[in-house]
Amino acid sequence: MANSHAAESTKQRSLLIDCDVHQTWSSEEEITQYLADHFQDRGLTPPGSPGWVNPIASHGLSRRDAVPDDGGPPGSNYDLLEEQLFGDFEVDYAILTGPLTQVKLAVHPNVHYAKAAVEAYNDWLIEEWLDKDDRLLGSIIVAPQSPQHAVDEIERLSSHNQIVQVMLPGADQSPYGHERYWPIYEIAEAKELSIAVHTTTGTYGNAWSASTSAGIPISYPERHMVTPTSIMGNLASVVYEGVFVEYPDLDWVFLEGGLAWLPYFMWKMDKLWKGVKESTPWLNRPPSEYIRENIWFSTQPIAEPENPKHLAYLFEMIHADETVVFSSDYPHWDNDNPRALIRNIDPETRQRIFSENARQIYGL
Amino acid sequence: MANSHAAESTKQRSLLIDCDVHQTWSSEEEITQYLADHFQDRGLTPPGSPGWVNPIASHGLSRRDAVPDDGGPPGSNYDLLEEQLFGDFEVDYAILTGPLTQVKLAVHPNVHYAKAAVEAYNDWLIEEWLDKDDRLLGSIIVAPQSPQHAVDEIERLSSHNQIVQVMLPGADQSPYGHERYWPIYEIAEAKELSIAVHTTTGTYGNAWSASTSAGIPISYPERHMVTPTSIMGNLASVVYEGVFVEYPDLDWVFLEGGLAWLPYFMWKMDKLWKGVKESTPWLNRPPSEYIRENIWFSTQPIAEPENPKHLAYLFEMIHADETVVFSSDYPHWDNDNPRALIRNIDPETRQRIFSENARQIYGL
Repeated sequence: MANSHAAESTKQRSLLIDCDVHQTWSSEEEITQYLADHFQDRGLTPPGSPGWVNPIASHGLSRRDAVPDDGGPPGSNYDLLEEQLFGDFEVDYAILTGPLTQVKLAVHPNVHYAKAAVEAYNDWLIEEWLDKDDRLLGSIIVAPQSPQHAVDEIERLSSHNQIVQVMLPGADQSPYGHERYWPIYEIAEAKELSIAVHTTTGTYGNAWSASTSAGIPISYPERHMVTPTSIMGNLASVVYEGVFVEYPDLDWVFLEGGLAWLPYFMWKMDKLWKGVKESTPWLNRPPSEYIRENIWFSTQPIAEPENPKHLAYLFEMIHADETVVFSSDYPHWDNDNPRALIRNIDPETRQRIFSENARQIYGL
Repeated sequence: MANSHAAESTKQRSLLIDCDVHQTWSSEEEITQYLADHFQDRGLTPPGSPGWVNPIASHGLSRRDAVPDDGGPPGSNYDLLEEQLFGDFEVDYAILTGPLTQVKLAVHPNVHYAKAAVEAYNDWLIEEWLDKDDRLLGSIIVAPQSPQHAVDEIERLSSHNQIVQVMLPGADQSPYGHERYWPIYEIAEAKELSIAVHTTTGTYGNAWSASTSAGIPISYPERHMVTPTSIMGNLASVVYEGVFVEYPDLDWVFLEGGLAWLPYFMWKMDKLWKGVKESTPWLNRPPSEYIRENIWFSTQPIAEPENPKHLAYLFEMIHADETVVFSSDYPHWDNDNPRALIRNIDPETRQRIFSENARQIYGL
């Protein structure tokens, strides 16, 4: 049978039709020339490849003058960082939070790879950065999907005296109030390390890494507006679930999520707590008190109201002297120069934002 | 063979093991007695059955005194609603937004059923409510998953002079800036109907109907805190995508999403627009100007800051005289009595919130 068929195919055979053949372009340029002009700088990029850098942010994400002479990416060269941060910005201590690639790796669906990746990042952090300059303080990253590994990693590295913080991805599969994460908080409190969560980066299984129940954002600014929603979800969760009742000495820092939505949270969390106290019987005090005692929010990107006095209003409303810490977000394109920042508030609050609050959190 | 097996089974047969038999309880009470005391009022309720009423909100969602004598649900009896709303609250006109069941049906995955369900709601609205009292004004609901049906439904009903608004579910599959929804906006503008979106209800395929990229909220208050995130996502979307450039006379109302997060949106949307204008080249003006001209937010649940003057600050920051409308949220348990509300602001702003803004939107 096989033989007779082979014979037939050399003579007069029936049509052979292959229904799935993957041709491709030889370079990005070859296909991009077919793309509409205003998307030329984007190329044919599937959602999620750089993923969160969406059409169109043509200038990229970093300061152009932060590209080092060696051609590496902004933030990769110690000398240039030293000059721009400790020199130009006159920063005294800097908490290193990494390129955020590591935060995404920490929620990699392959849990085995995620664990290896965070170990690599943490070892690199110490060897390539902390060992070079004792003004650099480190946040180790852990993979919350494996709380036991996270605990082991904190145990392994917390004795290094420049390790001051444990960083969690912007979001894991559950909000961070979930009891499965509490062993991480227990050891962090015991080792006097703060917990930091950066605004949406590396959310679990979401290539765009920022979403709401309204669906996947369409454009870069639309997406950027909802990045703090993961912080909102986690803020409500850790406070209502009672993390700070159980770990009253734990300091928690939310990074790059903005401040001007906080009045909604401080006021409404208290109102709901009064209205449905039976949902969270373990809370002894209004939720906003836990926020004021245990949680901090970083300044960048600073709110820029049309009327400058509204920033002072905002800072009064959110008790900024107890809840806000300075951050530059160096070397990103929209980083904030501390010398130009928040001029319109009382000197004592300014002092707390620019140094005292962080001294308290990081034990400086 | 069959015969010999049957014969065997009456004598000495091999074991027969059934690995999936679904026994059940004869009543909810039978199983609930096994449940821990503090969840007794909840029973054994899978997530999403009442779904969004989460353990524990034991008093339910409505005012107890809004239960009519006929035993129907709160809000189901015209006479009682008339007495409590037009009598006690001294409301002159009321925009009916329904039990919100209809909003969830509008995003039912069975699109055929969704279309029939919104038609049923709209017909019932007119016959059972609008025809009884001309102080009652109606929001028809449409199914955004079928824009053509939505357009037809608006065409079918917009001539009724008490129909003043088109209501969309809290969220559909895409943020509402997506071009597929624009035919709905085109006809709404042409018919001088506003668009209303209520805070997260009936989000597509999400039984909990409120989420962020931080994951599914754990408790009722935690969930309640993130309900406005669908409004946030949709707000950024409709403004950045240019809905109000194309439809400058369209009025858009976001209901029950709160106000105290708005400074973040008004300020940061402008900042991002300046920073990455090339993402949204169709916007001629700062995003906050479209918000101030085309978008309104309802008061309930009103912000309750510890310091009452902070509400006045907030109202100044968000230009409340141009962006806020009064709503009671009757008959829900946390409804706001207008006579007790927002006392601490200037009379002109109060006047605009309690009547002038809505007069403008609804043509009263």
